[in-house]
Amino acid sequence: MTDTLIDHRDLAFQLYEVLDTGSLADRERFSDHSRETFDAVIETADRIARDRFANHNSAGDRDEPKMTDGGVTMLPEVKDAFTAFAEAGFIAGRHDQELGGMQLPETVMAACNGLFTAANPGSAAYPFLTTAAANLIRVLGSDQQRASCLGPMLEGRYAGTMALTEPQAGSSLADLRTSATPTDDGHYLIKGAKIYISGGDQNLTDNIVHMVLARIKGAPAGVKGISLFIVPKFRVQEDGRPGEWNGVSLAGLIHKLGYRGATSTALSFGDDAPCHGYLVGEPHQGLKYMFQMMNEARVGVGIGAMAIGYRGYMHSLEYARTRLQGRPLSHKDPESPQVPIIEHADVRRMLLAQKSYCEGALALCLYGARLLDDQHTHPEPDKRREAGVLLDLLTPVIKAWPSDYGLRANDLAIQVYGGAGYTREYPVEQCWRDNRLNAIHEGTNGIQALDLLGRKIWQDQSHGLQLLMREMQIDLEAATSEQCSQWALSLSETLQQAVKVTQGLGRSLMAGDTEKSLANAAAYLHLFGHIVVSWMWLRQANAASCALANVSDEPARKFYLGKLQAARYFFHHELPTVAQDLVLLRNQDDTCLQMQPDWF
Amino acid sequence: MTDTLIDHRDLAFQLYEVLDTGSLADRERFSDHSRETFDAVIETADRIARDRFANHNSAGDRDEPKMTDGGVTMLPEVKDAFTAFAEAGFIAGRHDQELGGMQLPETVMAACNGLFTAANPGSAAYPFLTTAAANLIRVLGSDQQRASCLGPMLEGRYAGTMALTEPQAGSSLADLRTSATPTDDGHYLIKGAKIYISGGDQNLTDNIVHMVLARIKGAPAGVKGISLFIVPKFRVQEDGRPGEWNGVSLAGLIHKLGYRGATSTALSFGDDAPCHGYLVGEPHQGLKYMFQMMNEARVGVGIGAMAIGYRGYMHSLEYARTRLQGRPLSHKDPESPQVPIIEHADVRRMLLAQKSYCEGALALCLYGARLLDDQHTHPEPDKRREAGVLLDLLTPVIKAWPSDYGLRANDLAIQVYGGAGYTREYPVEQCWRDNRLNAIHEGTNGIQALDLLGRKIWQDQSHGLQLLMREMQIDLEAATSEQCSQWALSLSETLQQAVKVTQGLGRSLMAGDTEKSLANAAAYLHLFGHIVVSWMWLRQANAASCALANVSDEPARKFYLGKLQAARYFFHHELPTVAQDLVLLRNQDDTCLQMQPDWF
Repeated sequence: MTDTLIDHRDLAFQLYEVLDTGSLADRERFSDHSRETFDAVIETADRIARDRFANHNSAGDRDEPKMTDGGVTMLPEVKDAFTAFAEAGFIAGRHDQELGGMQLPETVMAACNGLFTAANPGSAAYPFLTTAAANLIRVLGSDQQRASCLGPMLEGRYAGTMALTEPQAGSSLADLRTSATPTDDGHYLIKGAKIYISGGDQNLTDNIVHMVLARIKGAPAGVKGISLFIVPKFRVQEDGRPGEWNGVSLAGLIHKLGYRGATSTALSFGDDAPCHGYLVGEPHQGLKYMFQMMNEARVGVGIGAMAIGYRGYMHSLEYARTRLQGRPLSHKDPESPQVPIIEHADVRRMLLAQKSYCEGALALCLYGARLLDDQHTHPEPDKRREAGVLLDLLTPVIKAWPSDYGLRANDLAIQVYGGAGYTREYPVEQCWRDNRLNAIHEGTNGIQALDLLGRKIWQDQSHGLQLLMREMQIDLEAATSEQCSQWALSLSETLQQAVKVTQGLGRSLMAGDTEKSLANAAAYLHLFGHIVVSWMWLRQANAASCALANVSDEPARKFYLGKLQAARYFFHHELPTVAQDLVLLRNQDDTCLQMQPDWF
Repeated sequence: MTDTLIDHRDLAFQLYEVLDTGSLADRERFSDHSRETFDAVIETADRIARDRFANHNSAGDRDEPKMTDGGVTMLPEVKDAFTAFAEAGFIAGRHDQELGGMQLPETVMAACNGLFTAANPGSAAYPFLTTAAANLIRVLGSDQQRASCLGPMLEGRYAGTMALTEPQAGSSLADLRTSATPTDDGHYLIKGAKIYISGGDQNLTDNIVHMVLARIKGAPAGVKGISLFIVPKFRVQEDGRPGEWNGVSLAGLIHKLGYRGATSTALSFGDDAPCHGYLVGEPHQGLKYMFQMMNEARVGVGIGAMAIGYRGYMHSLEYARTRLQGRPLSHKDPESPQVPIIEHADVRRMLLAQKSYCEGALALCLYGARLLDDQHTHPEPDKRREAGVLLDLLTPVIKAWPSDYGLRANDLAIQVYGGAGYTREYPVEQCWRDNRLNAIHEGTNGIQALDLLGRKIWQDQSHGLQLLMREMQIDLEAATSEQCSQWALSLSETLQQAVKVTQGLGRSLMAGDTEKSLANAAAYLHLFGHIVVSWMWLRQANAASCALANVSDEPARKFYLGKLQAARYFFHHELPTVAQDLVLLRNQDDTCLQMQPDWF
């Protein structure tokens, strides 16, 4: 077992050589920062992640939280981890200095969050959910709401959750039934049941602030009648301390395949006592508000999926370097010593595939985080707007691609270990179980595919798609080395074909043939995702090629050669797999659509 | 949760309409049988599988076997299941009537074994291992060995195991170190350590007969110096009852990701007391003997992987039919009732993919079992030989393809369930965990790929490949309906390209470029597997097309339409994915081979 969470050299390369993260310090919001402070923050995250999170990753999986009369109990190490995270300032990492925050760029926070998830996805869930809920309140809450909840959340005294899903509704938010009845005192009475609420109960903090979607009595049906409420577990007193219990009951803990350190709860609101909810913003705008934060949340899922994939890759790489077994195919003398399994081409294939998936996903997630930074802090208003449009378009890919390919990486990590990988004595099977969640939560990848092809591609007359192509063009033109220019050609040709099938799908959608146009949305998401990640690899390859020309020390040279070889893997082994997507989309294949339920 | 293990209509279709299994009753060995007795046996298997195996599948996973002072304890239901299996005659199912067996064809046994694994892979492992070890002794053992061990095994009083793997050797059998020292009494003293021995200890039977690979003192190094031994846990007395303990110690239980109901053990031989081993056959022939039984063992893995995949498909199909969520894309009125999720095209895609994988794998496994029958019982000696040659060629595919695609099916089953699928409250996550083993044990799929491209393709001047093409040609010519003939054309074109790349790889191998020729063995296995499974789908489609022309009742018509749609899915969505394999193999892509260990 290695204690490397995410390769440091790679992280530095991606942050500074590919993304020029150092230049963010030139912006007003980050003017107290520099590459040195960014690095110091990331080093702190890495240290806390290794010392306080990785230390109980396996134990938290084995010994999952339990429901008791008084609530939930769990390993004491989880609270230690939460406290260390909060005390180091990470809950408030992205927030204003005047709120006690560090005013860090999202790009740097993404790197830190990746390290925490790589160390222990279960325990990292509690502080992450708290930052997400705090962010909602910061942006949308009233002064009073901010005063009562935000401070304690940023300090780690209160935690937060997102309470959207209901048993009868699942992905169909239009069917939410939790009700909110207005009272004369200004608050609402909340009544209903929520399920799969991560961190919905725990014994880590004094209070839990649930961000609840509910329907005000008399509201329109469907998504247009949903409002957002702050619903604390304990009502907050004048002095900011938690007071009377607010009628939020733990109906049960859900036992999951992975992510076991994080409670997943069924909660009931207002069944056992009156439950006060405080409307956030305007009535009936809840879904819109949630979607305002959805990009961050979905980029967060991508980072988590990347990180778990990356961690499994690090484990299997170390194992392959140290595990002796077999001999090269060309000299099989049984008297000769066995070789490390990394010497076998098929093991190298499995490692190189992992490298191309995980480092590709890391590039994608950091790019997404950078778009968040640009959206909020770019000095030019046009660039801010463009970053937002581009991020809207890419969000489904940033959520789905790492969750599909991070999981594939974890599958390959198990295979590298062989029989050992199948045992709970080694760490990779847990990575695989943990990562399986990411294709499901925050909108299943099927939902992401519909979001991309049914909505995002066409938004603002496809402005996002045009911006994406403009941005890609810059890197296609910068690909001047022999290898890079070949890869750029492959990518450019694939892109042209993708544009053509997109236009065809657009015509069908305009003609009202919705079901058929969207029947292969999953293939479109795969096509689009592979194009975007190929671009991420071209960017890395361009940077590595340039650096290689000017580098003398041997470790650096090998690092860049490895980058180029992983890029080559992606362009030779992965990008061409979209040929099949292109055919299905070009033909608007209706095999699945035509299949009748009673033919199964 | 459905209690359907494998769809009965599909099983009957594949056995009788595609494979003409009824005609096996015309052969001398099966002359006491008929389609009616085959069906009765399968119905018995289905009933016992549901009543005595499925009943504790989840419990056996939750409450796995434990090591105690006296050995191993486990749920009492496991012994009930073992006893029911043995009492119904399944351990001796394929054996001679004079040994108390049922003389059943392998094809029928494969169907039965699929049902038992679908019901409970962990508990089914014990009787399966016993039949495999019994088979080795029946074919290779001396009269005395048969007398002392075979009877009790077939009756279920003794169980069996295969004890090959050692900690330092893994897939590299050449490096086995367990030693066998001859004694004057005719037996050998065995000393060494084995790991990952399934069923290596348990509390189900009076005795356990380990089939152990060991090296006789002074034997040649490598695989040429390995011999096969019978090593009972308790020495067998004259009267056939277990006597003195034979020095086989349980060093530990291994805690696995899945298949938890089946013990996986570390065993030590001869450390704590003298351990007697009895040589099977000639010295130094152990690996050859094991490989004689390897086809059966590997077909068995394929059947298990198919069955777990199939079971998950059955669960998710039922869930998709009953779970209401969302509305069709074209009418989203939130006041209208929600629809079963099977109405959504993307859910149908995930179900249709599962259907194409699982029914394709079932066809493949039954075809493999039929080859075993033909190899041993075909009336014409030439056909017997040919069946053996064809089976040798197809074994790596029958082992690997269902284990890769059965797992993919289970992954899709989880996704159909959404959040529910990620919880241990629903059955599909266990299927996914259980099935992950199958790509690893009995030779990892990487080993299968090397076996196929490095050995099987070229054996006997590629006689197997020629036979395969001859057999495929029959079905290509029989594809006369409009749909089927199009699919036959796709398959035939792909096959021609595959033959061409195979010839290219053959030339490289002849030229001694072993490493490079085999560097993309995994892609070759994928290509070859998809071609073979496409063929399996063409056979099913041909049968369904013919039947459809003559059928009047509505359920039968729908069944055949479903078959054709699944075939269409495979030909439109799956077969074309080999284009990428063809490119890599044509170019003999060396990306992975050129990657240097210190570039990672």
